[in-house]
Amino acid sequence: MASRSIRLAVIPGDGIGPEVVAEGLKVLDAVSGDLTFEQTSYDLGAARWHRTGETLPDSVLDELRGQDVILLGAVGDPSVPSGTLERGLLLRTRFELDHYVNLRPVKLFPGVRTPLAGVTTDDIDMVVVREGTEGPYTGVGGVLRKGTPHEVATQESVNTAYGVERVIRYAFEVAASRPRKKLTLVHKDNVLTFAGDLYQRVLKRVGAEYPQVTTDYVHVDAATMFFVSQPQRFDVVVTDNLFGDIITDIGAAIAGGIGLAASGNVNPDRTAPSMFEPVHGSAPDIAGQGKADPTATILSVAMLLDHIGEGEAARRVEQAVSDDLAERAGLGARSTSQVGDAIAKRVSG
Amino acid sequence: MASRSIRLAVIPGDGIGPEVVAEGLKVLDAVSGDLTFEQTSYDLGAARWHRTGETLPDSVLDELRGQDVILLGAVGDPSVPSGTLERGLLLRTRFELDHYVNLRPVKLFPGVRTPLAGVTTDDIDMVVVREGTEGPYTGVGGVLRKGTPHEVATQESVNTAYGVERVIRYAFEVAASRPRKKLTLVHKDNVLTFAGDLYQRVLKRVGAEYPQVTTDYVHVDAATMFFVSQPQRFDVVVTDNLFGDIITDIGAAIAGGIGLAASGNVNPDRTAPSMFEPVHGSAPDIAGQGKADPTATILSVAMLLDHIGEGEAARRVEQAVSDDLAERAGLGARSTSQVGDAIAKRVSG
Ligand SMILES: CC(C)[C@H](C(=O)O)[C@@H](O)C(=O)O
Ligand SMILES: CC(C)[C@H](C(=O)O)[C@@H](O)C(=O)O
Repeated sequence: MASRSIRLAVIPGDGIGPEVVAEGLKVLDAVSGDLTFEQTSYDLGAARWHRTGETLPDSVLDELRGQDVILLGAVGDPSVPSGTLERGLLLRTRFELDHYVNLRPVKLFPGVRTPLAGVTTDDIDMVVVREGTEGPYTGVGGVLRKGTPHEVATQESVNTAYGVERVIRYAFEVAASRPRKKLTLVHKDNVLTFAGDLYQRVLKRVGAEYPQVTTDYVHVDAATMFFVSQPQRFDVVVTDNLFGDIITDIGAAIAGGIGLAASGNVNPDRTAPSMFEPVHGSAPDIAGQGKADPTATILSVAMLLDHIGEGEAARRVEQAVSDDLAERAGLGARSTSQVGDAIAKRVSG
Repeated sequence: MASRSIRLAVIPGDGIGPEVVAEGLKVLDAVSGDLTFEQTSYDLGAARWHRTGETLPDSVLDELRGQDVILLGAVGDPSVPSGTLERGLLLRTRFELDHYVNLRPVKLFPGVRTPLAGVTTDDIDMVVVREGTEGPYTGVGGVLRKGTPHEVATQESVNTAYGVERVIRYAFEVAASRPRKKLTLVHKDNVLTFAGDLYQRVLKRVGAEYPQVTTDYVHVDAATMFFVSQPQRFDVVVTDNLFGDIITDIGAAIAGGIGLAASGNVNPDRTAPSMFEPVHGSAPDIAGQGKADPTATILSVAMLLDHIGEGEAARRVEQAVSDDLAERAGLGARSTSQVGDAIAKRVSG
């Protein structure tokens, strides 16, 4: 196979971000073989905001557009006003680079402790396809008479046929590729009737093209309950931006915790680079202590490899993580880099 | 004590609604003593909608306003378009009768199986105070170019200082009355910045009047995770209408299932009657078979008693439920009325 060169943007970020990203890159390096990654590191996050007041300058966004793919650690710090980096950096990236699929596997690996009693690895194996560029995340809304007894604050969920159709179509493709071929729409169509109805109609219309996929519908409140009481009910889930945010955190909880949850902010049309990141935040309380679990980042690297067409390397990384997790219970506490070393050794060995 | 007479509106509803309500009333009757309930039953729900096209006629709403308190079973049926009864009956009642507090205890009773491994009854004992009259539940929104590739569907979350302050104030009162005196705001202020900021500022301002109550803040996505991984983190939770809907279903799941989850739609100012109802729906698949668990309705009756100032009777019902639950594991399957009989016997005995 000819050697390939991939332009990789790395955003280590704040807190434990740089530590977990270092391990992700270690594993990427170990699995690369003929693949070359031309890495560019971007200094974005709380530190930069404190220094310059910038979250994501246009010039940096333009540079990111020229990359093939992005790996992000975590950004954020309690010293930064809530929403500043989220809206100004994370969500801005997702919206500007048209990451309309936020892909979040929820999978219980062998040997991993779940807080649920009596479930096996077969019971928790789903993929959540979360819409990433509209819904309640648009930032549309405002405040009137702020700080007075007559204040009104609004937030608007904006949903378009264009946006809903493309994410539902992607979810059908994922479902069609999996053995169970089941797609569940999660929404709240009995209360959010306009948006819910749009999702339902598009599901039905696009579903006609995928007769091999079974579809069903669950209200978001019931879905959270079923994640805990009957996770085996789900194969592929498609849902809006906010519901997806919420249910994937329960997904992380049942599949062994936020230390293991990977995600991809994917632009399936490849009109801009996709971004892969662990679901967890910057955890400033344990930063710099070598305590952070790099597994979620390493699994995000596997997703990144899959996205750039290196499916075989992706599966090697996933298998190495799986093998490592299976033995973890028997090992004592390991540092961030020890976990990274162990997994890197498995992929290269 | 002088005898009291209470005007009680009963909405049995659809599916299992009438069955569970019958058991709730049985227990209410057994615990009443000198209390008299003048009952009026209202025929509302799917059956009426099919017959007359009505969800909640103005005349019925007016009659309800003249009652002291309302007990609702469950309404809904798959044959009714999604949202019709929810918006036209359930939410209309909450909004028109100004049920700005939706009170949902999440409590693991002794002997009840939780899906979580290794938690005890001490770990799951919280009260969720969900806002009931604004947020994303207003119905504000619309659809443009419906059915075309250019369709836009919006939903607006409307939040007011007036609405947020009264529910937060109520939550502080609840927190101040409990041993742990801890109040957690659950929101998503890093994304829904306008609404989240309003909740945060009001929490801070009202909190100054309750120095004995500790407050903290958790994003809704993290909260769902903590419900599963660290439920003991929560004492009293205050949150908006939609987040409250979602987290209380996880609450129900961790506390033994939807068959046990009670709720009150409360108007604390008593300008209109409050309404008590089990969190579960009408479950048409098991209707008429005597299989439904009436416990959630019976616990809702306990909340109703508390609301009308009959705290001692409320505690007797709750204790009877607790005793019954503690022995359930050893008993075989019981019918809906057998459970009601057993609990009624305990409260009167
Ligand atoms: C940090 C925040 C903006 C983000 C989100 O809400 O999407 C995070 O919770 C996530 O799930 O990636
Ligand atoms: C039926 C529906 C309108 C309702 C809600 O969303 O509030 C229900 O889920 C509840 O929690 O009481």
